[in-house]
Amino acid sequence: MKQLAILGSTGSIGRQTLQVIDSTPNTIKPVALAAGNNKLLFLEQVKKYKPQLISMQHEEDARWLQQQLDGFHQKIDICYGSEGLLAVATFSDADTVLTAISGAVGLQPTVAAIKAGKTIALANKETLVAAGELIMLLAREYGVHIMPVDSEHSAIWQCLQGENSHDVARLILTASGGPFRSWSSEQMAAITPAMALNHPNWQMGAKITVDSATLMNKGLEVIEARWLFDISYDNINVVIHPQSIIHSMVEFNDGSVLAQMGVPDMRLPIQYALFYPQRLAGKAPRLQWPIGELTFAEPDYERFPSLNLAFQAGRVGKTMPAVLNAANEMAVHAFLAGRLEFKAIPKLVAKVMEEHSPVQYNSLEDIMEMDSWARHRVEEIIG
Amino acid sequence: MKQLAILGSTGSIGRQTLQVIDSTPNTIKPVALAAGNNKLLFLEQVKKYKPQLISMQHEEDARWLQQQLDGFHQKIDICYGSEGLLAVATFSDADTVLTAISGAVGLQPTVAAIKAGKTIALANKETLVAAGELIMLLAREYGVHIMPVDSEHSAIWQCLQGENSHDVARLILTASGGPFRSWSSEQMAAITPAMALNHPNWQMGAKITVDSATLMNKGLEVIEARWLFDISYDNINVVIHPQSIIHSMVEFNDGSVLAQMGVPDMRLPIQYALFYPQRLAGKAPRLQWPIGELTFAEPDYERFPSLNLAFQAGRVGKTMPAVLNAANEMAVHAFLAGRLEFKAIPKLVAKVMEEHSPVQYNSLEDIMEMDSWARHRVEEIIG
Repeated sequence: MKQLAILGSTGSIGRQTLQVIDSTPNTIKPVALAAGNNKLLFLEQVKKYKPQLISMQHEEDARWLQQQLDGFHQKIDICYGSEGLLAVATFSDADTVLTAISGAVGLQPTVAAIKAGKTIALANKETLVAAGELIMLLAREYGVHIMPVDSEHSAIWQCLQGENSHDVARLILTASGGPFRSWSSEQMAAITPAMALNHPNWQMGAKITVDSATLMNKGLEVIEARWLFDISYDNINVVIHPQSIIHSMVEFNDGSVLAQMGVPDMRLPIQYALFYPQRLAGKAPRLQWPIGELTFAEPDYERFPSLNLAFQAGRVGKTMPAVLNAANEMAVHAFLAGRLEFKAIPKLVAKVMEEHSPVQYNSLEDIMEMDSWARHRVEEIIG
Repeated sequence: MKQLAILGSTGSIGRQTLQVIDSTPNTIKPVALAAGNNKLLFLEQVKKYKPQLISMQHEEDARWLQQQLDGFHQKIDICYGSEGLLAVATFSDADTVLTAISGAVGLQPTVAAIKAGKTIALANKETLVAAGELIMLLAREYGVHIMPVDSEHSAIWQCLQGENSHDVARLILTASGGPFRSWSSEQMAAITPAMALNHPNWQMGAKITVDSATLMNKGLEVIEARWLFDISYDNINVVIHPQSIIHSMVEFNDGSVLAQMGVPDMRLPIQYALFYPQRLAGKAPRLQWPIGELTFAEPDYERFPSLNLAFQAGRVGKTMPAVLNAANEMAVHAFLAGRLEFKAIPKLVAKVMEEHSPVQYNSLEDIMEMDSWARHRVEEIIG
């Protein structure tokens, strides 16, 4: 039985991971769980799955849990904060760590899990965006496998099975285009958080849903793909595919294209990552043939400048992607808090990138320093 | 350098195979060629590729070639007829045999090539339709690989790379639907050979083009897929996809679907079969993204009864698929000769199938006997 640690068990990916575990009894045991603020749901999860180690973001929530679990028939170690997150990421009994927390906060525990020799089921794309080169170097050094959970990267990974990497001509990432795909630039001036959180195809967390609406999510995925599949930015393309049925594609040197398709349901790529290379019969719904029409379009780089910002940051490399990512995270949170307009998100990211002189990083600390700098700059600019 | 024998070098697949060879210099040498009636083109091919052994269907064409090649600077053995075809199929210097002749006439040379230990690049689907069980048994016995050249089966083969066969839920064969996809039953009464030979997407030989118009081609491919991929008819589906961009798909047990896409150009699957597992950069055109819309529909089994006839024959098994195939070949030739109406093709096939009492075959001779019986019955019925 696989022993799993989950970073972010109460988030969207965490909850769906536990659904996958429920639907495949006696295959995976969640032995360590970490959560953010949702203490009520976390208490339920802890009582149901009986992990050995749990952690919450805040000390008071951890104390509350301690009280609730007083007299619980099994001993559970409870910790909190970034130290608690690291403890869950490196928990000795876990062989696999699912990184399902959002944002650059996933960076340190992912590095710790790699150094502890854990297989990584990677659902935190910001990790590879901010520190892709370092992460992939560490993974090779520690002989650790990184299994993508993002649906696009899972699709590419599936298309690459049994293929030679030198036969790959390019990766074609599909993007739904988000809820504002066909909005005019004028209409986009009035976008509210509620509008941006209404994704047409996918149920996801708030931050990634806003990123999908700006297309920054696709840009982050381009950088993630560059590192996961060791491929040049020149050979990564993005195509708009509003139905989100084809999750991504690989074009090979002979002109043949392999595509992975399925209903837009994150349980599919989660399950694939957890059981790879097996394909267990899961509970996720299936495509019903004949399916409806599939359409494709060029992304509009004018109305959605974030996509090009990500390509630019990726090509510059060094600390630039970390700065792009940190500035974007802060801008999205400011937008969600009503402090920033939707169209100002990419402008703010572009401004912070312009101010940044990228340096070659040698450690996680170098990256975290630039991450902090970018976050402070966004705060200063928003005022 | 691969040494290739081609059965049917002047046909559509044969000519495109030679184009693939031209585009990949110093990789494949055509050492033996067999052709039907097109002696002028065959002479050109022989002069260009300088094979060691050649064969034509008719003795007088072979004699004509002998005269034309008198004084040619290289010794070329010339033979003819079914013996000539067998000589090419088993030519000692060839390691691979491409079976690109149309119809059940491909059966005997394919069996001979397998027994001679040749790798088979299979472009003659009638072989697997008529004698799939026997062919696959022989291939296992002689340790011979069968590489599909049909675009649908090449697509499935590509989707199965790196996958476990026990994870396959079903195969989804795509069908363009042919030129009469949206014609009413009344309109279909007036179909002429010229109309049927006008396929919307693919350039192919006459027999397969008519089979595409009746959907019998897809039916034959269902039977071919059953044997190539060792899968039950219950797990093979057909979906109409008029654009012929997705060449076929595999649905896995987890609900994930892999699809192989490309421009409808037979040079792609020919090249894949010849160079497997390598994917050489070829000359075939590539999909230009964003591509146009892809649509899907249920086949109309009422207007295209041939598809169900093939499923029925496949499920009955024994000698029934050979009879289906022989009756269909004769009916198509009668239609092309203006002796039979388009809508009478499946009726005639159904009638001969009804008259046939299928028997378990033990040899190629058993199958050829039933093949002959079915051909005679069609002739008798047409009168």
